[in-house]
Amino acid sequence: MIEAGIVGGTGYTGVELLRILTLHPQVNVTVVTSRADEGKRVDALYPSLRGVCNLTFVTPTVENLASCDVVFFATPNGTAMLMAEQLLAKGIKVIDLSADFRLQDPLQWQHWYGMEHACPEMIKQAVYGLPEVNRAAIKATRLLACPGCYPTAVQLGFLPLIEQNAADLSHLIADVKSGVSGAGRKAELATLMSETGESFKAYAVAGHRHLPEITQGLEAVAKQTVNLTFVPHLTPMIRGIHATLYTQTSLDSDAVQHLYEQRYAHESFVDVLPLGSMPDTRNVRGSNKCQIALHKPQGGNTLVILSVIDNLVKGAAGQAVQGMNLMFGFNETLGLKTIALYP
Amino acid sequence: MIEAGIVGGTGYTGVELLRILTLHPQVNVTVVTSRADEGKRVDALYPSLRGVCNLTFVTPTVENLASCDVVFFATPNGTAMLMAEQLLAKGIKVIDLSADFRLQDPLQWQHWYGMEHACPEMIKQAVYGLPEVNRAAIKATRLLACPGCYPTAVQLGFLPLIEQNAADLSHLIADVKSGVSGAGRKAELATLMSETGESFKAYAVAGHRHLPEITQGLEAVAKQTVNLTFVPHLTPMIRGIHATLYTQTSLDSDAVQHLYEQRYAHESFVDVLPLGSMPDTRNVRGSNKCQIALHKPQGGNTLVILSVIDNLVKGAAGQAVQGMNLMFGFNETLGLKTIALYP
Amino acid sequence: MIEAGIVGGTGYTGVELLRILTLHPQVNVTVVTSRADEGKRVDALYPSLRGVCNLTFVTPTVENLASCDVVFFATPNGTAMLMAEQLLAKGIKVIDLSADFRLQDPLQWQHWYGMEHACPEMIKQAVYGLPEVNRAAIKATRLLACPGCYPTAVQLGFLPLIEQNAADLSHLIADVKSGVSGAGRKAELATLMSETGESFKAYAVAGHRHLPEITQGLEAVAKQTVNLTFVPHLTPMIRGIHATLYTQTSLDSDAVQHLYEQRYAHESFVDVLPLGSMPDTRNVRGSNKCQIALHKPQGGNTLVILSVIDNLVKGAAGQAVQGMNLMFGFNETLGLKTIALYP
Amino acid sequence: MIEAGIVGGTGYTGVELLRILTLHPQVNVTVVTSRADEGKRVDALYPSLRGVCNLTFVTPTVENLASCDVVFFATPNGTAMLMAEQLLAKGIKVIDLSADFRLQDPLQWQHWYGMEHACPEMIKQAVYGLPEVNRAAIKATRLLACPGCYPTAVQLGFLPLIEQNAADLSHLIADVKSGVSGAGRKAELATLMSETGESFKAYAVAGHRHLPEITQGLEAVAKQTVNLTFVPHLTPMIRGIHATLYTQTSLDSDAVQHLYEQRYAHESFVDVLPLGSMPDTRNVRGSNKCQIALHKPQGGNTLVILSVIDNLVKGAAGQAVQGMNLMFGFNETLGLKTIALYP
Repeated sequence: MIEAGIVGGTGYTGVELLRILTLHPQVNVTVVTSRADEGKRVDALYPSLRGVCNLTFVTPTVENLASCDVVFFATPNGTAMLMAEQLLAKGIKVIDLSADFRLQDPLQWQHWYGMEHACPEMIKQAVYGLPEVNRAAIKATRLLACPGCYPTAVQLGFLPLIEQNAADLSHLIADVKSGVSGAGRKAELATLMSETGESFKAYAVAGHRHLPEITQGLEAVAKQTVNLTFVPHLTPMIRGIHATLYTQTSLDSDAVQHLYEQRYAHESFVDVLPLGSMPDTRNVRGSNKCQIALHKPQGGNTLVILSVIDNLVKGAAGQAVQGMNLMFGFNETLGLKTIALYP
Repeated sequence: MIEAGIVGGTGYTGVELLRILTLHPQVNVTVVTSRADEGKRVDALYPSLRGVCNLTFVTPTVENLASCDVVFFATPNGTAMLMAEQLLAKGIKVIDLSADFRLQDPLQWQHWYGMEHACPEMIKQAVYGLPEVNRAAIKATRLLACPGCYPTAVQLGFLPLIEQNAADLSHLIADVKSGVSGAGRKAELATLMSETGESFKAYAVAGHRHLPEITQGLEAVAKQTVNLTFVPHLTPMIRGIHATLYTQTSLDSDAVQHLYEQRYAHESFVDVLPLGSMPDTRNVRGSNKCQIALHKPQGGNTLVILSVIDNLVKGAAGQAVQGMNLMFGFNETLGLKTIALYP
Repeated sequence: MIEAGIVGGTGYTGVELLRILTLHPQVNVTVVTSRADEGKRVDALYPSLRGVCNLTFVTPTVENLASCDVVFFATPNGTAMLMAEQLLAKGIKVIDLSADFRLQDPLQWQHWYGMEHACPEMIKQAVYGLPEVNRAAIKATRLLACPGCYPTAVQLGFLPLIEQNAADLSHLIADVKSGVSGAGRKAELATLMSETGESFKAYAVAGHRHLPEITQGLEAVAKQTVNLTFVPHLTPMIRGIHATLYTQTSLDSDAVQHLYEQRYAHESFVDVLPLGSMPDTRNVRGSNKCQIALHKPQGGNTLVILSVIDNLVKGAAGQAVQGMNLMFGFNETLGLKTIALYP
Repeated sequence: MIEAGIVGGTGYTGVELLRILTLHPQVNVTVVTSRADEGKRVDALYPSLRGVCNLTFVTPTVENLASCDVVFFATPNGTAMLMAEQLLAKGIKVIDLSADFRLQDPLQWQHWYGMEHACPEMIKQAVYGLPEVNRAAIKATRLLACPGCYPTAVQLGFLPLIEQNAADLSHLIADVKSGVSGAGRKAELATLMSETGESFKAYAVAGHRHLPEITQGLEAVAKQTVNLTFVPHLTPMIRGIHATLYTQTSLDSDAVQHLYEQRYAHESFVDVLPLGSMPDTRNVRGSNKCQIALHKPQGGNTLVILSVIDNLVKGAAGQAVQGMNLMFGFNETLGLKTIALYP
């Protein structure tokens, strides 16, 4: 049994961590921080936790977190990098759900996130927490940089093909649709129900912060430059990401299907559907699964890869717990064997 | 470890039973029936169950169910009453999620359900499966009649007051709003997204089948006639019931609050919120909880009771499993300690 | 052709006024104000108006509005009362969609709106803009106080019965459900899609600001005290209000139906559906109609009145234009003959 | 003033035609047919039309339609081709909103629509009703084949570039998202709110019927073979299509923007947004507009074209009325100057 702290417990990834960790058989959540709601009971803010969580929000200080074995950062970007070093120094493992340690290049980080990185020298220690790629390194690290939601869906969709050098890397396209919870729990006009309900739009077409993260991940595997066009969209639902990925490949559809099935045969949380399936985000809602399906329409060379996740689970809190399981030597699926809520 | 069968596994209550029972530590689901989908894999129809359910739909015969310790009926009304006797005769316990055994009076049943009851003599053996009222009887029965979704939310909301003879029984009002999954998984115009999305309507105002069930339950406690006006509404969401209940009472709000807190103090699945709270259906979505809040607005005599459940869990499959736990001597909360999916 | 100004053009009632007035054959909208968006093109904020609106937001000063024949206030409460007097002094008619001039008693206003009324002496000049009750007075006034959305749906539902002294005024209940656009275009956590989507809740049960407005309207007709319990709810859709009203009456259902049909026979925007109908908010979405249906369930004395409107049209901008038509001697339906957008 | 008939008045395109034509100043709708609802009042089925439509559904016979100047077919595929010839013989113009006359090649039609074409010789007489391409021919024809919803959004998005021979025709990608009303008003499991709400999925990836229609349209302009990958998706909203189109072009973004603005400068219903805009389907909901925006992200060669329409208006009924206006010499925008319903 380990003790866990959550910094930034009032956002959607924070409360999702609470939902998962509260039922985890090897974890006690002992600290949840919130500057704004300090002193308030957690279950007063989140009545879904009544009866299972007796905690009160405290301020996010190293002292308050000192007894933890692991601390999760479910904070806006720029917070984890200010506290990680001190926590690590106390022997506490750090799992960052924000973007602070995702990009290897601090200058690129500064470019995309609009601030100077506070501890560029620590970036090298961080391991990018996509278990399907980095399992061994995750087991060994004390500082985990959890992937973004879009990068998880897109990388899991492209990786098997790129690993086999079977994709045309000069023209990858990722047309991705996200539910609105991806925008976080922030008072903003743009994500009001009256603004996003019954409507569909693209956003950040010129360049989304997850673009360099995806490119970095794909290039690490490809060992060459990758040209990716990434267009995120907002779809009128709360949870779920659906990535529709396009590339050219000379492999026929059976070969592609076989390749993906083999690649993910031993992965608990990546599920390759039968050839020609159409995954539905509802079938992974609330679960840590990524479901992938493959199509080569009309006998052409274009491969269409469909990849769906729950942005708050496999795209955030669930993947963080999967990483934690690896870091502490637990069974990788512990606390994550939930089934999607359908309908 | 017991073996369970599900008759009618292709509706929403059927797949919800599968979601819950698959993770139940004392249950193996060994048989799932469907006439229409016989021979098809269950997880082909419900990809959310891939990896956790290896079953294939079989036809609903007594033979196919013979090895079960318990059989759940997640069927349309009129099916369970045709098979229950034979199953009971084989020593199999029967849990009916349909309405076949809910009404004590077979003539009333015939009036509201439009067909003659096939085994009126068995109705007396059936126990109405609301654990908060009938726990002892549920433990002892072999034939459980699970309450409807509306009746669960309304009865749990009214019962403490009526038990204390503190409500004006001549004018009870239940204004109840349900998500569309309550209408079931049937190809119908009325529940298309284009018909129910972005719109709100009342239905069955003249008389809904759950009216006699609610009245029967309230009168059993009141030991007198109850005059209830019940107006169900369809709200544009998938899961959730919100009952807004109105009655007159001379008790002041603190007394009412105290009464409800005492009444449900030892109930695992009924949660009385602090006085003046406004429960939100999302906070019970996917969980077996009923959350209740009490209001006496503007210093008048009118008591407003707000009661929310997930219609597919506490209003159907979850409550059925709660009943099963009691019938088999398991801990009442086994397999039901999930936390609502928020957001 | 008259010239109209809109103060507060960036909220939902403001943009709805623009939608309606832009197509009105007797109105030119010449001024739209916004402090925050001053200098910005209106159609840059609202691309739905591209091609039909060439205006730029200006600051809300009397000078900027001086050329108008009529000025609409689509502002938060407390703004119109600061400018109305000066505009009226210039001979400009004022139509206030906020609550500033709705309540006759300035102390009651102060109690419910939390600020002192800036021009209590002007309240008497204002006419409450429910045309179905106050048509003659509306024609004659220069200062119109447009009813709130809830009050419109509730009053139109109760009025015929109360006018005939046929309701039990000691126990009126209004259980009302609103789409989220009623909360306005404000950056708030509570109306994010992740918070309100797929969920249903009551709010302000202890006392909503529209309660005194409704009571004032009903009492003016009843000529006695009215005891109303009003419970507003938030339903996961954007537009629409559905009022479910309960009272006791000795009239039988045919008599009630006849009474309502007679009462509204000459009203263009109140439509009494056939006895036993279930109005759907979608059938008035985008239109200025109120649809009403009547039920006396199960042969009891309880009358159930269902009343639906589009909160932004008959509940706000449409009713304001209806009032304007009366104030300027236009045909009452001018510019308002749109048909609801279904599906 | 002309007289119009609608065959198949009970689907979503049928009722949308009624909404538009009822307010059209030069049209009287005198006949609406429905086999299933014959004898029923139209406004009993569609209460949104109460007060503006006094018609009763009649059976779809040539006799019943004989007095019409124009007949719209809002029917499933395969119906218009059975009646068109007889109606044309009587001097009645025919506007088909189904797919019967869209494809020039009857064998291709048979392949995609699964039945033999009933009057292949008439296909040549039909004009494909995309006014932005075929205006002159539409004015002259008596048989109009209205484009499908997807083809409208995709063709309007690609055409300017292809006309200038500036696109890489070997790898066009159309990733398109549609609201569920596109599936029509049919009792089907797949479009229940419980199935499509809060979820996102692709469908018909292997080949959608609109693929040959789009390809035919693009090739007619390109005068060469076009290789298009078209992936339609279902998004949880009722109305709206958002096409995200990808191609390679050597034109820089300003040149592309200029090209599109010039191309559509005189089109009333195609609106090219400022460079870098993100069109939102809500801004065209209920209107006949197509809004287009252009992006060349990250300085690459990939052009991203965003094109949005309301599938029931510019994608069906609105475009049909636009065509009718041209066929009868009315102003092209008559009856179509509505503004999108926002929010």
